[in-house]
Amino acid sequence: MTANEPVPFTADDYAARMARVTRDAEQAGLAGVIVGPGPDLVWLTGYQPTAITERLTMLALLPDREPTLLVPILEHPDAAAAKGATGLTLVDWTDGSDPYAAASALLRNDGRFGISDSSWALHLLGLQRALPGTRYEGLSACLPMLRAVKDDNELARLAAAGAAADATYGEIVNAKFAGRRETEVAADLAALLRQFGHEQVDFTVVGSGPNGANPHHEAGERVIEEGDAVVLDFGGLMDGYGSDTTRTVTVGEPTAEIQKVHDIVRAAQQAGVDAVRPGVTCQDIDRAARAVITDAGYGEYFIHRTGHGIGTTTHEPPYMVEGEEQPLVPGMCFSVEPGIYLPGRFGVRIEDIVTVTADGGRRFNSTDHGIRVVG
Amino acid sequence: MTANEPVPFTADDYAARMARVTRDAEQAGLAGVIVGPGPDLVWLTGYQPTAITERLTMLALLPDREPTLLVPILEHPDAAAAKGATGLTLVDWTDGSDPYAAASALLRNDGRFGISDSSWALHLLGLQRALPGTRYEGLSACLPMLRAVKDDNELARLAAAGAAADATYGEIVNAKFAGRRETEVAADLAALLRQFGHEQVDFTVVGSGPNGANPHHEAGERVIEEGDAVVLDFGGLMDGYGSDTTRTVTVGEPTAEIQKVHDIVRAAQQAGVDAVRPGVTCQDIDRAARAVITDAGYGEYFIHRTGHGIGTTTHEPPYMVEGEEQPLVPGMCFSVEPGIYLPGRFGVRIEDIVTVTADGGRRFNSTDHGIRVVG
Repeated sequence: MTANEPVPFTADDYAARMARVTRDAEQAGLAGVIVGPGPDLVWLTGYQPTAITERLTMLALLPDREPTLLVPILEHPDAAAAKGATGLTLVDWTDGSDPYAAASALLRNDGRFGISDSSWALHLLGLQRALPGTRYEGLSACLPMLRAVKDDNELARLAAAGAAADATYGEIVNAKFAGRRETEVAADLAALLRQFGHEQVDFTVVGSGPNGANPHHEAGERVIEEGDAVVLDFGGLMDGYGSDTTRTVTVGEPTAEIQKVHDIVRAAQQAGVDAVRPGVTCQDIDRAARAVITDAGYGEYFIHRTGHGIGTTTHEPPYMVEGEEQPLVPGMCFSVEPGIYLPGRFGVRIEDIVTVTADGGRRFNSTDHGIRVVG
Repeated sequence: MTANEPVPFTADDYAARMARVTRDAEQAGLAGVIVGPGPDLVWLTGYQPTAITERLTMLALLPDREPTLLVPILEHPDAAAAKGATGLTLVDWTDGSDPYAAASALLRNDGRFGISDSSWALHLLGLQRALPGTRYEGLSACLPMLRAVKDDNELARLAAAGAAADATYGEIVNAKFAGRRETEVAADLAALLRQFGHEQVDFTVVGSGPNGANPHHEAGERVIEEGDAVVLDFGGLMDGYGSDTTRTVTVGEPTAEIQKVHDIVRAAQQAGVDAVRPGVTCQDIDRAARAVITDAGYGEYFIHRTGHGIGTTTHEPPYMVEGEEQPLVPGMCFSVEPGIYLPGRFGVRIEDIVTVTADGGRRFNSTDHGIRVVG
């Protein structure tokens, strides 16, 4: 579970992933797994089409067949160049022909198939029409742990992405906040993430004053003022794996109320992380963090789940939410990010990425959890 | 049909679009229209969630109801801030509750619904499970002309985006090609598109020598050589509307063969554009361009359709492809982009965006169609 230096994924890595998913699918009683462009396809094959369009690209993994990728003929060369393509049969289809007829030949007209969540509805409808004997279920429902347990090479990437996010935080707190627009600070965050190695910036939340009370506020034209609490939540992909961390700073010394709310959120976040260990369920993490906030009288102001998985995306299973009874397994990685949002006034959130180890949880973010006073 | 200066879309524009789609849906015998995050939602409401995640966001347009947008509660403030939100009822759902139960209350358990093509399969499956009496069809199949006919304000945006792409071409031909990697020229193209006003770059294809024979090759590490034909295909979004243009240049004087192939493609592209007028079908445009290439003996090397619609995306209906019998209507905008691809050797493609006028077609790209010799 130590985070070594990441090494490039090999054709064998992709072949092993495809074999494991095919085996897992069979054990789950599935006729097979269907994967469209997106993070599941990247993880399984290393292939990411230049643009995701209406043209059908579909990986079919069936227990009794070779892994096969159906591609538009004009994207064949790109698909063939993917690292995982050596373990794949490529089948082309041509503009003007029926891609679902071509897809049908790779599947079978009975049984239940898992399909990647973000596959287009258009394509699912085409398959349902072409193969009326089949049924479908989202991969996050039927194989929720598909990508959830990370191997050492993946953990190394997530650790590196977390360290880069921490370096970003270490720099941003020296920036000027008062008198600048949220969007300017957000631009700084994006530039820093890239400077520290991210190839993709997914979000740069700068929620100042009342905007902090909107958890998914991105960054707006509001000018940050003396006395504001400012929620900073930022992340993206580095070497294909995600970062996501949140700290709440204040411009000048915090008021007693901001300090109090911050103390509660900090204790809740710590309680959530402390609860992490193998065998505990996802909802237990949510409950542990939420109890602290509820007990302090702010339960109604914690309006989202406590966390989400992270890997080749910055939002994926497992979800730390009431009702999710999936037990934690070593190698899982997810956010622990409770918050309190006081409408029209301010918000506080603290977030780290945590991985499950043999005997507990280990943070991939290690910047200080206290309120940092900025200028 | 003149391209005036674009003006901001108003709440009334969005309300009118929602009303028209609802009316069109009723006339098409649909029980309603369901739209997830993506270009259809942006076009109908002006709302683009910060990130498209597994959390359900769904616009429901039913003939006998007010337009309603189901949103995760933590994204409510962002949705409420969208320009089109004044014409919408917002309904929230909370983490841990069943979003499909909430969605069901906004729909009905019978009839056929249109659903936006790129809605997640996960969500379609959730709706099918929650409302077993319903049937679904992709919006591009049941309302293919949803966004296809542009109004004057949209045409002005597409004209401006086209002019910016032309300005990009005007600059890139002065750049150094020989001895530089494709990726370096691609970076120049992206920077120029932004410099001339694009907020989003969707693709910067630099296909040099044999790479030009792969129509969807993006840009790679190949060093461009003297004598290469180089396919340059680039575009993105400006003020929310797309550009997409292709020219083929040569490094030094073209060989006789490149010149010959280029002449054929140029004639094919002209034939495609010349065929544009109201009432002609989409497949007629494909046939007109393809006939020139086939008659010249290169039919097997033109391996894609002749064009695609463009608007709030750079790839949308109508498609200029064999089998598409949709008649052209004034205000439609699409690419005309035949090509010839000689595997392992070189490729040539020429592409303009064209809009249908009352009596023909008008190009939004006006840079010279001849081979430009670069250094």
